[in-house]
Amino acid sequence: MYNENGKYSISVCFSPLSWHLFAKEDSVVVIVDIFRATTAICAALHSGVRSIIPVADISESEDYKKKGFIIAGERDGQKLDCADLGNSPFQFLNPDLAGKTVVLNTTNGTQAIRAASSTGNVVAIGSFLNLDAVTRFVTLQSKPVVIFCAGWKNRFSLEDTLFAGALAQNLITRCNGDFHTMCDSVIASIDLWQIAQNDLNAYIQKAAHRHRLRKMGLDDILEFSLTQNFSNVVPVLSGIELVDAEKQS
Amino acid sequence: MYNENGKYSISVCFSPLSWHLFAKEDSVVVIVDIFRATTAICAALHSGVRSIIPVADISESEDYKKKGFIIAGERDGQKLDCADLGNSPFQFLNPDLAGKTVVLNTTNGTQAIRAASSTGNVVAIGSFLNLDAVTRFVTLQSKPVVIFCAGWKNRFSLEDTLFAGALAQNLITRCNGDFHTMCDSVIASIDLWQIAQNDLNAYIQKAAHRHRLRKMGLDDILEFSLTQNFSNVVPVLSGIELVDAEKQS
Repeated sequence: MYNENGKYSISVCFSPLSWHLFAKEDSVVVIVDIFRATTAICAALHSGVRSIIPVADISESEDYKKKGFIIAGERDGQKLDCADLGNSPFQFLNPDLAGKTVVLNTTNGTQAIRAASSTGNVVAIGSFLNLDAVTRFVTLQSKPVVIFCAGWKNRFSLEDTLFAGALAQNLITRCNGDFHTMCDSVIASIDLWQIAQNDLNAYIQKAAHRHRLRKMGLDDILEFSLTQNFSNVVPVLSGIELVDAEKQS
Repeated sequence: MYNENGKYSISVCFSPLSWHLFAKEDSVVVIVDIFRATTAICAALHSGVRSIIPVADISESEDYKKKGFIIAGERDGQKLDCADLGNSPFQFLNPDLAGKTVVLNTTNGTQAIRAASSTGNVVAIGSFLNLDAVTRFVTLQSKPVVIFCAGWKNRFSLEDTLFAGALAQNLITRCNGDFHTMCDSVIASIDLWQIAQNDLNAYIQKAAHRHRLRKMGLDDILEFSLTQNFSNVVPVLSGIELVDAEKQS
Protein backbone atom coordinates (compact mmCIF):
# COMPACT_ATOMS: atom_id res chain seq x y z
CA MET A 1 0.00 0.00 0.00
CA TYR A 2 2.25 2.74 -1.32
CA ASN A 3 1.02 6.32 -1.39
CA GLU A 4 1.15 8.55 -4.43
CA ASN A 5 4.87 9.15 -4.09
CA GLY A 6 5.75 5.46 -3.99
CA LYS A 7 6.51 5.61 -0.26
CA TYR A 8 4.79 4.22 2.78
CA SER A 9 2.77 6.82 4.64
CA ILE A 10 3.36 7.78 8.27
CA SER A 11 0.47 9.11 10.37
CA VAL A 12 0.20 10.07 14.02
CA CYS A 13 -3.11 9.71 15.87
CA PHE A 14 -3.10 12.00 18.93
CA SER A 15 -6.09 10.53 20.76
CA PRO A 16 -8.23 7.38 20.79
CA LEU A 17 -11.15 9.73 19.95
CA SER A 18 -9.60 10.26 16.49
CA TRP A 19 -8.71 6.63 15.79
CA HIS A 20 -11.49 6.09 13.21
CA LEU A 21 -9.83 8.75 11.02
CA PHE A 22 -6.61 6.73 10.94
CA ALA A 23 -7.85 3.14 10.95
CA LYS A 24 -6.71 1.41 7.78
CA GLU A 25 -6.33 -2.19 6.93
CA ASP A 26 -2.92 -3.74 6.40
CA SER A 27 -0.93 -1.17 8.35
CA VAL A 28 1.50 -1.45 11.21
CA VAL A 29 0.19 0.37 14.27
CA VAL A 30 2.61 1.38 17.01
CA ILE A 31 0.86 1.97 20.34
CA VAL A 32 2.44 4.56 22.65
CA ASP A 33 1.66 5.27 26.30
CA ILE A 34 5.00 6.41 27.74
CA PHE A 35 3.72 7.09 31.29
CA ARG A 36 3.41 4.17 31.85
CA ALA A 37 1.84 1.22 30.04
CA THR A 38 4.01 0.78 26.95
CA THR A 39 7.21 1.48 28.92
CA ALA A 40 6.16 -1.17 31.44
CA ILE A 41 5.37 -3.70 28.69
CA CYS A 42 8.78 -3.20 27.07
CA ALA A 43 10.51 -3.51 30.46
CA ALA A 44 8.61 -6.72 31.19
CA LEU A 45 9.43 -8.52 27.93
CA HIS A 46 13.03 -7.29 28.20
CA SER A 47 13.27 -9.01 31.59
CA GLY A 48 12.05 -12.29 30.18
CA VAL A 49 8.31 -12.12 30.89
CA ARG A 50 6.82 -14.51 28.30
CA SER A 51 3.72 -12.43 27.54
CA ILE A 52 1.49 -9.61 28.71
CA ILE A 53 -2.29 -9.78 28.44
CA PRO A 54 -3.60 -6.19 28.45
CA VAL A 55 -7.05 -5.66 30.00
CA ALA A 56 -9.09 -2.51 30.66
CA ASP A 57 -11.66 -3.44 33.33
CA ILE A 58 -11.04 -4.45 36.93
CA SER A 59 -13.52 -7.31 36.48
CA GLU A 60 -11.30 -8.75 33.73
CA SER A 61 -8.31 -8.64 36.07
CA GLU A 62 -10.36 -10.38 38.77
CA ASP A 63 -11.42 -13.12 36.33
CA TYR A 64 -7.78 -13.78 35.35
CA LYS A 65 -6.81 -13.79 39.05
CA LYS A 66 -9.26 -16.65 39.66
CA LYS A 67 -7.58 -18.58 36.84
CA GLY A 68 -4.21 -18.26 38.59
CA PHE A 69 -2.57 -15.55 36.49
CA ILE A 70 -0.17 -12.93 37.87
CA ILE A 71 -2.07 -9.65 37.95
CA ALA A 72 -0.60 -6.13 37.62
CA GLY A 73 -2.53 -2.90 37.76
CA GLU A 74 -3.33 0.35 39.51
CA ARG A 75 -6.03 2.97 39.71
CA ASP A 76 -4.90 6.50 40.57
CA GLY A 77 -1.55 5.20 41.78
CA GLN A 78 -2.99 2.54 44.12
CA LYS A 79 -2.44 -1.15 43.38
CA LEU A 80 -5.70 -2.93 42.55
CA ASP A 81 -7.04 -5.14 45.35
CA CYS A 82 -6.74 -8.20 43.14
CA ALA A 83 -3.23 -7.33 41.88
CA ASP A 84 0.13 -8.85 42.76
CA LEU A 85 2.02 -5.93 41.20
CA GLY A 86 1.41 -2.26 40.41
CA ASN A 87 2.23 -1.00 36.92
CA SER A 88 5.55 0.73 37.49
CA PRO A 89 8.09 -0.44 34.89
CA PHE A 90 10.50 -1.19 37.75
CA GLN A 91 8.23 -3.94 39.10
CA PHE A 92 8.66 -5.82 35.83
CA LEU A 93 12.46 -5.78 35.96
CA ASN A 94 12.29 -8.81 38.23
CA PRO A 95 13.97 -12.05 37.10
CA ASP A 96 11.36 -14.05 39.05
CA LEU A 97 8.84 -13.11 36.36
CA ALA A 98 10.87 -14.74 33.55
CA GLY A 99 8.81 -17.13 31.49
CA LYS A 100 5.54 -16.04 33.10
CA THR A 101 2.43 -14.37 31.66
CA VAL A 102 1.29 -11.18 33.39
CA VAL A 103 -2.19 -9.66 33.04
CA LEU A 104 -1.72 -5.86 32.93
CA ASN A 105 -4.64 -3.58 33.70
CA THR A 106 -4.19 -0.37 31.69
CA THR A 107 -7.21 1.59 30.58
CA ASN A 108 -5.72 3.91 27.95
CA GLY A 109 -3.30 1.33 26.52
CA THR A 110 -5.79 -1.52 26.31
CA GLN A 111 -8.40 0.57 24.55
CA ALA A 112 -5.84 1.65 21.98
CA ILE A 113 -4.56 -1.92 21.43
CA ARG A 114 -8.09 -3.27 20.97
CA ALA A 115 -9.08 -0.50 18.57
CA ALA A 116 -5.93 -0.98 16.50
CA SER A 117 -6.21 -4.77 16.29
CA SER A 118 -9.80 -4.75 15.08
CA THR A 119 -8.83 -3.93 11.50
CA GLY A 120 -6.33 -6.76 11.03
CA ASN A 121 -3.19 -4.67 11.46
CA VAL A 122 0.19 -5.61 12.84
CA VAL A 123 0.12 -4.07 16.35
CA ALA A 124 3.42 -3.26 18.06
CA ILE A 125 4.31 -1.54 21.33
CA GLY A 126 6.62 1.48 21.30
CA SER A 127 8.43 3.36 24.06
CA PHE A 128 11.69 5.23 24.33
CA LEU A 129 13.15 2.02 25.78
CA ASN A 130 12.87 0.28 22.38
CA LEU A 131 12.94 3.26 19.98
CA ASP A 132 15.56 1.92 17.57
CA ALA A 133 14.26 -1.65 17.76
CA VAL A 134 10.72 -0.56 16.91
CA THR A 135 12.10 1.59 14.07
CA ARG A 136 13.79 -1.51 12.56
CA PHE A 137 10.67 -3.62 13.11
CA VAL A 138 8.39 -1.12 11.38
CA THR A 139 10.80 -0.80 8.45
CA LEU A 140 10.78 -4.56 7.90
CA GLN A 141 6.97 -4.69 7.71
CA SER A 142 6.82 -2.78 4.38
CA LYS A 143 3.46 -1.26 5.28
CA PRO A 144 2.05 2.18 6.05
CA VAL A 145 2.55 3.04 9.73
CA VAL A 146 0.22 4.72 12.18
CA ILE A 147 1.67 5.85 15.51
CA PHE A 148 -1.22 5.70 17.95
CA CYS A 149 -0.79 7.88 21.06
CA ALA A 150 -2.94 6.45 23.84
CA GLY A 151 -2.88 9.83 25.59
CA TRP A 152 -4.35 10.52 29.00
CA LYS A 153 -8.12 10.13 29.27
CA ASN A 154 -8.39 10.77 25.52
CA ARG A 155 -6.36 13.99 25.70
CA PHE A 156 -3.30 14.96 23.71
CA SER A 157 -0.18 13.96 25.62
CA LEU A 158 3.18 15.63 25.22
CA GLU A 159 5.33 12.61 26.12
CA ASP A 160 3.51 10.29 23.69
CA THR A 161 3.78 12.95 20.97
CA LEU A 162 7.55 13.29 21.51
CA PHE A 163 7.97 9.54 21.05
CA ALA A 164 5.84 9.73 17.88
CA GLY A 165 8.14 12.47 16.60
CA ALA A 166 11.26 10.46 17.41
CA LEU A 167 9.95 7.37 15.62
CA ALA A 168 8.68 9.33 12.60
CA GLN A 169 12.00 11.14 12.28
CA ASN A 170 13.90 7.83 12.47
CA LEU A 171 11.68 6.34 9.76
CA ILE A 172 12.06 9.33 7.45
CA THR A 173 15.80 9.83 7.89
CA ARG A 174 17.11 6.28 8.25
CA CYS A 175 15.04 4.17 5.90
CA ASN A 176 16.31 4.91 2.40
CA GLY A 177 13.44 7.24 1.61
CA ASP A 178 10.81 4.52 2.08
CA PHE A 179 8.60 6.66 4.31
CA HIS A 180 6.77 9.88 3.66
CA THR A 181 4.09 11.95 5.37
CA MET A 182 1.31 14.36 4.45
CA CYS A 183 -0.05 14.43 7.98
CA ASP A 184 0.12 17.64 10.04
CA SER A 185 0.29 15.68 13.29
CA VAL A 186 3.50 13.98 12.09
CA ILE A 187 5.06 17.34 11.19
CA ALA A 188 4.14 18.76 14.60
CA SER A 189 5.46 15.67 16.42
CA ILE A 190 8.81 15.80 14.63
CA ASP A 191 9.23 19.52 15.28
CA LEU A 192 8.43 19.09 18.98
CA TRP A 193 10.89 16.17 19.16
CA GLN A 194 13.57 18.34 17.60
CA ILE A 195 13.07 20.93 20.34
CA ALA A 196 13.04 18.33 23.12
CA GLN A 197 15.58 15.71 22.07
CA ASN A 198 18.73 17.33 23.39
CA ASP A 199 17.37 17.39 26.94
CA LEU A 200 14.27 15.27 27.12
CA ASN A 201 14.22 15.18 30.92
CA ALA A 202 14.21 18.98 31.09
CA TYR A 203 11.56 19.36 28.37
CA ILE A 204 9.20 16.85 29.94
CA GLN A 205 9.06 18.95 33.12
CA LYS A 206 6.44 20.97 31.23
CA ALA A 207 4.12 18.02 30.61
CA ALA A 208 0.84 17.88 32.50
CA HIS A 209 1.11 14.17 33.28
CA ARG A 210 4.54 14.72 34.77
CA HIS A 211 2.82 16.93 37.39
CA ARG A 212 0.06 14.36 37.94
CA LEU A 213 2.65 11.63 38.57
CA ARG A 214 4.56 13.84 41.00
CA LYS A 215 1.39 14.54 42.98
CA MET A 216 0.74 10.81 43.25
CA GLY A 217 4.37 10.10 44.22
CA LEU A 218 4.82 8.08 41.01
CA ASP A 219 7.49 10.19 39.36
CA ASP A 220 10.36 7.86 40.21
CA ILE A 221 9.88 6.24 36.78
CA LEU A 222 10.32 9.40 34.70
CA GLU A 223 14.02 9.23 33.93
CA PHE A 224 13.86 5.49 33.19
CA SER A 225 10.81 5.97 30.93
CA LEU A 226 12.74 8.51 28.85
CA THR A 227 15.83 6.26 28.47
CA GLN A 228 16.41 5.56 24.79
CA ASN A 229 17.32 2.10 23.51
CA PHE A 230 17.47 0.29 26.83
CA SER A 231 16.13 -2.79 25.05
CA ASN A 232 15.87 -4.54 21.70
CA VAL A 233 12.50 -6.17 22.37
CA VAL A 234 9.49 -5.28 20.25
CA PRO A 235 6.26 -6.43 21.88
CA VAL A 236 3.69 -7.39 19.24
CA LEU A 237 0.10 -8.51 19.58
CA SER A 238 -0.47 -12.22 18.98
CA GLY A 239 -4.09 -13.14 19.68
CA ILE A 240 -4.82 -11.54 23.04
CA GLU A 241 -1.19 -11.52 24.20
CA LEU A 242 1.76 -9.22 23.67
CA VAL A 243 4.91 -11.22 22.98
CA ASP A 244 8.45 -10.45 21.84
CA ALA A 245 8.43 -10.25 18.02
CA GLU A 246 11.71 -12.20 17.83
CA LYS A 247 10.38 -15.10 19.87
CA GLN A 248 7.10 -15.14 17.93
CA SER A 249 8.73 -15.80 14.57
CA MET B 1 -13.56 30.77 37.68
CA TYR B 2 -9.92 30.92 38.73
CA ASN B 3 -7.83 27.77 38.77
CA GLU B 4 -5.78 26.63 41.72
CA ASN B 5 -3.05 29.18 41.04
CA GLY B 6 -5.45 32.13 41.02
CA LYS B 7 -5.14 32.49 37.25
CA TYR B 8 -7.49 31.84 34.38
CA SER B 9 -6.79 28.61 32.57
CA ILE B 10 -5.94 28.37 28.88
CA SER B 11 -6.79 25.21 26.94
CA VAL B 12 -6.43 24.29 23.28
CA CYS B 13 -8.85 21.81 21.68
CA PHE B 14 -7.23 20.32 18.55
CA SER B 15 -10.34 18.78 16.98
CA PRO B 16 -14.14 18.99 17.21
CA LEU B 17 -13.97 15.28 18.17
CA SER B 18 -12.37 16.30 21.48
CA TRP B 19 -14.66 19.22 22.26
CA HIS B 20 -16.60 17.44 25.04
CA LEU B 21 -13.32 17.21 27.01
CA PHE B 22 -12.99 21.01 26.95
CA ALA B 23 -16.58 22.20 27.15
CA LYS B 24 -17.02 24.26 30.28
CA GLU B 25 -19.61 26.79 31.26
CA ASP B 26 -18.74 30.45 31.61
CA SER B 27 -15.65 30.40 29.43
CA VAL B 28 -14.61 32.40 26.41
CA VAL B 29 -14.17 30.15 23.39
CA VAL B 30 -12.09 31.38 20.45
CA ILE B 31 -12.91 29.51 17.24
CA VAL B 32 -10.06 29.12 14.73
CA ASP B 33 -10.23 27.94 11.11
CA ILE B 34 -7.40 29.85 9.41
CA PHE B 35 -7.87 28.31 5.93
CA ARG B 36 -10.43 29.80 5.50
CA ALA B 37 -13.58 30.41 7.53
CA THR B 38 -12.40 32.51 10.46
CA THR B 39 -10.07 34.55 8.26
CA ALA B 40 -12.99 35.25 5.91
CA ILE B 41 -15.27 36.25 8.80
CA CYS B 42 -12.70 38.71 10.17
CA ALA B 43 -12.14 40.16 6.68
CA ALA B 44 -15.88 40.58 6.20
CA LEU B 45 -16.58 42.43 9.45
CA HIS B 46 -13.45 44.53 8.90
CA SER B 47 -14.92 45.64 5.57
CA GLY B 48 -18.16 46.73 7.16
CA VAL B 49 -20.34 43.64 6.72
CA ARG B 50 -22.95 43.99 9.47
CA SER B 51 -23.13 40.30 10.38
CA ILE B 52 -22.31 36.78 9.26
CA ILE B 53 -24.72 33.89 9.79
CA PRO B 54 -22.66 30.66 9.75
CA VAL B 55 -24.43 27.55 8.42
CA ALA B 56 -23.20 24.00 7.79
CA ASP B 57 -25.68 22.42 5.34
CA ILE B 58 -26.37 23.43 1.75
CA SER B 59 -30.12 23.20 2.47
CA GLU B 60 -29.72 25.93 5.12
CA SER B 61 -27.98 28.16 2.57
CA GLU B 62 -30.81 27.50 0.09
CA ASP B 63 -33.44 28.41 2.68
CA TYR B 64 -31.71 31.73 3.43
CA LYS B 65 -31.37 32.38 -0.31
CA LYS B 66 -35.17 32.16 -0.66
CA LYS B 67 -35.49 34.75 2.11
CA GLY B 68 -33.32 37.16 0.11
CA PHE B 69 -30.02 36.90 2.00
CA ILE B 70 -26.59 37.17 0.36
CA ILE B 71 -25.15 33.65 0.30
CA ALA B 72 -21.45 32.70 0.40
CA GLY B 73 -20.05 29.20 0.28
CA GLU B 74 -18.08 26.53 -1.52
CA ARG B 75 -17.66 22.79 -1.62
CA ASP B 76 -14.23 21.52 -2.71
CA GLY B 77 -13.33 24.93 -4.10
CA GLN B 78 -16.47 25.32 -6.23
CA LYS B 79 -19.01 28.03 -5.39
CA LEU B 80 -22.33 26.55 -4.26
CA ASP B 81 -25.09 26.73 -6.89
CA CYS B 82 -27.19 28.91 -4.60
CA ALA B 83 -24.28 31.19 -3.63
CA ASP B 84 -23.52 34.76 -4.67
CA LEU B 85 -19.95 34.55 -3.36
CA GLY B 86 -17.35 31.85 -2.65
CA ASN B 87 -15.62 31.88 0.71
CA SER B 88 -12.27 33.41 -0.15
CA PRO B 89 -11.48 36.21 2.32
CA PHE B 90 -10.83 38.51 -0.67
CA GLN B 91 -14.47 38.34 -1.76
CA PHE B 92 -15.49 39.92 1.52
CA LEU B 93 -13.15 42.91 1.15
CA ASN B 94 -15.82 44.54 -0.99
CA PRO B 95 -17.30 47.87 0.12
CA ASP B 96 -20.60 46.97 -1.55
CA LEU B 97 -21.20 44.47 1.25
CA ALA B 98 -21.05 47.17 3.96
CA GLY B 99 -24.04 47.05 6.26
CA LYS B 100 -25.27 43.74 4.83
CA THR B 101 -25.73 40.31 6.42
CA VAL B 102 -24.01 37.40 4.65
CA VAL B 103 -24.89 33.73 5.19
CA LEU B 104 -21.59 31.80 5.14
CA ASN B 105 -21.59 28.07 4.49
CA THR B 106 -18.62 26.56 6.36
CA THR B 107 -18.81 22.98 7.59
CA ASN B 108 -15.87 22.86 10.04
CA GLY B 109 -16.36 26.38 11.37
CA THR B 110 -20.12 26.16 11.87
CA GLN B 111 -19.92 22.87 13.74
CA ALA B 112 -17.32 24.34 16.08
CA ILE B 113 -19.34 27.53 16.65
CA ARG B 114 -22.52 25.57 17.42
CA ALA B 115 -20.75 23.17 19.78
CA ALA B 116 -19.08 26.04 21.64
CA SER B 117 -22.23 28.12 21.99
CA SER B 118 -24.30 25.30 23.46
CA THR B 119 -22.80 25.69 26.92
CA GLY B 120 -23.52 29.40 27.34
CA ASN B 121 -20.01 30.61 26.61
CA VAL B 122 -18.82 33.82 25.03
CA VAL B 123 -17.88 32.73 21.48
CA ALA B 124 -15.35 34.80 19.51
CA ILE B 125 -13.68 34.34 16.14
CA GLY B 126 -9.89 34.35 15.89
CA SER B 127 -7.50 34.55 12.96
CA PHE B 128 -4.05 35.98 12.40
CA LEU B 129 -5.83 39.05 10.97
CA ASN B 130 -7.13 40.00 14.43
CA LEU B 131 -4.57 38.32 16.72
CA ASP B 132 -3.87 41.29 18.97
CA ALA B 133 -7.50 42.42 19.00
CA VAL B 134 -8.73 38.99 20.07
CA THR B 135 -5.97 38.88 22.73
CA ARG B 136 -7.30 42.14 24.20
CA PHE B 137 -10.90 40.94 23.95
CA VAL B 138 -10.17 37.65 25.75
CA THR B 139 -8.27 39.47 28.50
CA LEU B 140 -11.22 41.76 29.16
CA GLN B 141 -13.62 38.83 29.63
CA SER B 142 -11.95 37.65 32.90
CA LYS B 143 -12.83 34.04 32.17
CA PRO B 144 -11.02 30.80 31.37
CA VAL B 145 -10.29 30.56 27.65
CA VAL B 146 -10.56 27.61 25.32
CA ILE B 147 -9.00 27.97 21.85
CA PHE B 148 -11.04 25.67 19.62
CA CYS B 149 -9.28 24.59 16.41
CA ALA B 150 -11.90 23.65 13.84
CA GLY B 151 -9.30 21.59 11.96
CA TRP B 152 -9.87 19.88 8.63
CA LYS B 153 -12.49 17.12 8.66
CA ASN B 154 -11.88 16.65 12.39
CA ARG B 155 -8.11 16.29 11.95
CA PHE B 156 -5.34 18.19 13.71
CA SER B 157 -4.39 21.22 11.62
CA LEU B 158 -0.99 22.90 11.72
CA GLU B 159 -2.16 26.40 10.78
CA ASP B 160 -4.93 26.45 13.40
CA THR B 161 -2.48 25.14 16.01
CA LEU B 162 0.03 27.90 15.20
CA PHE B 163 -2.66 30.51 15.76
CA ALA B 164 -3.57 28.83 19.06
CA GLY B 165 0.09 29.04 20.08
CA ALA B 166 0.32 32.72 19.12
CA LEU B 167 -2.81 33.61 21.12
CA ALA B 168 -1.80 31.51 24.14
CA GLN B 169 1.67 33.06 24.15
CA ASN B 170 0.16 36.55 23.95
CA LEU B 171 -2.16 35.81 26.87
CA ILE B 172 0.60 34.36 29.05
CA THR B 173 3.23 37.02 28.32
CA ARG B 174 1.17 40.20 28.01
CA CYS B 175 -1.57 39.91 30.57
CA ASN B 176 0.04 40.59 33.93
CA GLY B 177 0.20 36.92 34.85
CA ASP B 178 -3.59 36.49 34.66
CA PHE B 179 -3.37 33.34 32.51
CA HIS B 180 -1.89 29.96 33.15
CA THR B 181 -1.99 26.52 31.58
CA MET B 182 -1.69 22.89 32.60
CA CYS B 183 -2.70 21.64 29.17
CA ASP B 184 -0.19 19.76 27.00
CA SER B 185 -1.87 20.98 23.82
CA VAL B 186 -1.20 24.60 24.84
CA ILE B 187 2.48 23.83 25.51
CA ALA B 188 2.80 22.10 22.13
CA SER B 189 1.02 24.97 20.33
CA ILE B 190 3.27 27.63 21.88
CA ASP B 191 6.44 25.68 21.07
CA LEU B 192 5.35 25.18 17.45
CA TRP B 193 4.49 28.89 17.21
CA GLN B 194 7.95 29.76 18.50
CA ILE B 195 9.52 27.70 15.71
CA ALA B 196 7.24 29.15 13.04
CA GLN B 197 6.78 32.79 14.01
CA ASN B 198 9.87 34.27 12.41
CA ASP B 199 8.85 33.05 8.97
CA LEU B 200 5.27 31.86 9.08
CA ASN B 201 4.90 31.74 5.28
CA ALA B 202 7.90 29.41 4.99
CA TYR B 203 6.80 27.19 7.87
CA ILE B 204 3.27 26.77 6.54
CA GLN B 205 4.62 25.28 3.32
CA LYS B 206 4.79 22.03 5.32
CA ALA B 207 1.08 22.00 6.20
CA ALA B 208 -1.15 19.41 4.54
CA HIS B 209 -3.99 21.86 3.88
CA ARG B 210 -1.59 24.21 2.12
CA HIS B 211 -1.06 21.41 -0.44
CA ARG B 212 -4.80 20.75 -0.70
CA LEU B 213 -5.45 24.44 -1.40
CA ARG B 214 -2.71 24.54 -4.04
CA LYS B 215 -4.19 21.54 -5.83
CA MET B 216 -7.58 23.28 -5.91
CA GLY B 217 -6.01 26.56 -7.09
CA LEU B 218 -7.14 28.25 -3.86
CA ASP B 219 -3.72 29.14 -2.47
CA ASP B 220 -3.90 32.82 -3.45
CA ILE B 221 -5.22 33.53 0.06
CA LEU B 222 -2.31 32.02 1.99
CA GLU B 223 -0.16 35.09 2.51
CA PHE B 224 -3.16 37.25 3.40
CA SER B 225 -4.47 34.61 5.84
CA LEU B 226 -1.15 34.68 7.69
CA THR B 227 -1.03 38.51 7.94
CA GLN B 228 -0.97 39.52 11.58
CA ASN B 229 -3.09 42.37 12.92
CA PHE B 230 -4.66 43.51 9.69
CA SER B 231 -7.79 44.37 11.65
CA ASN B 232 -9.11 45.33 15.08
CA VAL B 233 -12.48 43.63 14.70
CA VAL B 234 -13.45 40.77 17.00
CA PRO B 235 -16.42 38.85 15.63
CA VAL B 236 -18.56 37.48 18.47
CA LEU B 237 -21.63 35.29 18.43
CA SER B 238 -24.88 37.11 19.19
CA GLY B 239 -27.85 34.79 18.78
CA ILE B 240 -27.26 33.12 15.43
CA GLU B 241 -25.12 35.96 14.02
CA LEU B 242 -21.48 36.90 14.26
CA VAL B 243 -21.13 40.64 14.80
CA ASP B 244 -18.30 43.03 15.65
CA ALA B 245 -17.88 43.00 19.46
CA GLU B 246 -17.43 46.81 19.50
CA LYS B 247 -20.68 47.44 17.67
CA GLN B 248 -22.54 44.93 19.83
CA SER B 249 -21.87 46.74 23.09
